[in-house]
Amino acid sequence: MQAITLSGNELQFQADRQAPDLQTGEVFVDISLAGICETDLQLIQGYMGFSGVLGHEFVGVARSGQFADQRVVGEINCSCHQCDTCQAGRPTHCPNRTVIGIDRHDGAFATTLAVPERNLHRVPDQISDRQAVFAEPLAAAFEITEQVTVTPNDRVAVLGDGRLALMCSQVLANCSGNVTVFGKHAAKLRRFTERGVSTEALQGTLPSNVPANAFDLVVDCTGSTTGLPMALQMVRPRGTVIMKTTVAGQHEQSLAAIVIDEINLLGSRCGPFDQALDAIAKGHINLDDLITDSFALSDYQAAFEAAKHADSFKVIFEIA
Amino acid sequence: MQAITLSGNELQFQADRQAPDLQTGEVFVDISLAGICETDLQLIQGYMGFSGVLGHEFVGVARSGQFADQRVVGEINCSCHQCDTCQAGRPTHCPNRTVIGIDRHDGAFATTLAVPERNLHRVPDQISDRQAVFAEPLAAAFEITEQVTVTPNDRVAVLGDGRLALMCSQVLANCSGNVTVFGKHAAKLRRFTERGVSTEALQGTLPSNVPANAFDLVVDCTGSTTGLPMALQMVRPRGTVIMKTTVAGQHEQSLAAIVIDEINLLGSRCGPFDQALDAIAKGHINLDDLITDSFALSDYQAAFEAAKHADSFKVIFEIA
Repeated sequence: MQAITLSGNELQFQADRQAPDLQTGEVFVDISLAGICETDLQLIQGYMGFSGVLGHEFVGVARSGQFADQRVVGEINCSCHQCDTCQAGRPTHCPNRTVIGIDRHDGAFATTLAVPERNLHRVPDQISDRQAVFAEPLAAAFEITEQVTVTPNDRVAVLGDGRLALMCSQVLANCSGNVTVFGKHAAKLRRFTERGVSTEALQGTLPSNVPANAFDLVVDCTGSTTGLPMALQMVRPRGTVIMKTTVAGQHEQSLAAIVIDEINLLGSRCGPFDQALDAIAKGHINLDDLITDSFALSDYQAAFEAAKHADSFKVIFEIA
Repeated sequence: MQAITLSGNELQFQADRQAPDLQTGEVFVDISLAGICETDLQLIQGYMGFSGVLGHEFVGVARSGQFADQRVVGEINCSCHQCDTCQAGRPTHCPNRTVIGIDRHDGAFATTLAVPERNLHRVPDQISDRQAVFAEPLAAAFEITEQVTVTPNDRVAVLGDGRLALMCSQVLANCSGNVTVFGKHAAKLRRFTERGVSTEALQGTLPSNVPANAFDLVVDCTGSTTGLPMALQMVRPRGTVIMKTTVAGQHEQSLAAIVIDEINLLGSRCGPFDQALDAIAKGHINLDDLITDSFALSDYQAAFEAAKHADSFKVIFEIA
């Protein structure tokens, strides 16, 4: 099969890599489209020390099992479903898990992916492949509404104007009429306003230049050390800050406001695929015009360059 | 009146200070006992830039109003009860509030305190003054069970072996049979074991030397930068970390685990006095032998020295 592999910080296109071995419960999926995510760019920088086939956002066709010959997307955590954590209903936190394209499990930037059958979700007919490839990041956005109840009058701020912010802001705007996205890039913010989501351009010295204590819920999608101090300033006492993005390494920060204002800081990661697919099928999430470039696997260098470019939004591989 | 005042970092005993002016809704309380808290020591170091009469843990006798001539304890936040925050049911976070002995409101290290009548709680007859003086820190411990539900099988860790840890661990041990206190000082830990609370002595390199992912709830009462990294390591995925103590200034820390493990980090401050008084009255909280020294106001230098001493627990002023 064809695949893009990472070894150290070295990316490689392999035109004739051996297909992965099927583990118990896994089926092969022939990948149609696969999206490049911020996490992929971090993995190339050394995050997680991953080596193998990259890629974890995909849509493809299952070769066998209950979804044979049907279009599928798939959850990325390959859990043991036996340990205490899995039995307690937290399989995405299984200590024995591998993670597709992220942690000891070959990923989806390949013609063929081996994936646990129970991780797969059938893609409804009314969803195109170019929509379905967003199922994984959109599911991550729906994790927020799994964790907290957002009501129509809640004042919600989303920090960041990238891909995850766009998913989160649309999910949240379906719950509350008071969602504002704060971002630095006018061109990126336009994608939000086109979808009816209010935006504010961040300017000047942060966090001093953002409203204080003005939001019930602040969602940090910045992937930057500037995100949390802003969020802690913007949230009201006893409000909630959701951290959707990680920042690698140690950073100078003050957390006294969390205690003084009794803030609820909540980490948020992978979410429910069924809700994501349902929302796409019902037209509740607008995924039009978000794929700004597509490439063949062999063109991987250009693809990753495009993904890093400020004007790009989602870059995908067209594989079959 | 007699009072201990702070100006800059300068403490002073005033034998004949003018009594404070009564603001609308306030009554005078003649102070019987007042406790020295860690916050007082921080205020002397410059925290909050406070100047005026120190002290916010007290029991005394109200001079007028509905509690005239009765023993009372009092909540420390003097809120406006008019603003949006107060109207939304969060008066302890009122942006217009002053705080007794902490922020622009003279405190209880004095023969006379002016305090909003609505802040007062009558001390039941079966509670001694030497128990009642713990109402404020015990109420802060009860804030935890206001914020999260603790069930009998929850695995709970309390980090720290000081005053607040002793209050929190007793409140939590009344909810769960699995509470363990982690502290550095054998002599201090003995106070916990005497009360039937399990303890573990912290040794070696932290946080590497504490159990990982082993607790549903971790309460950080360390007041130290070592507390949060320990807590984040000890809590299970999707578990809760309560921050009871602040650490001043900026610190190098990594918060990636909050996102990866979807941890719920919750700041916790002042709590319900009624629950604290009820628990003391019912004998659910053992406050015996916790007052290790008592002093006259004029002996303030010896009192603050004693409060800083490792062997001391609660140091109080005996005022009337």
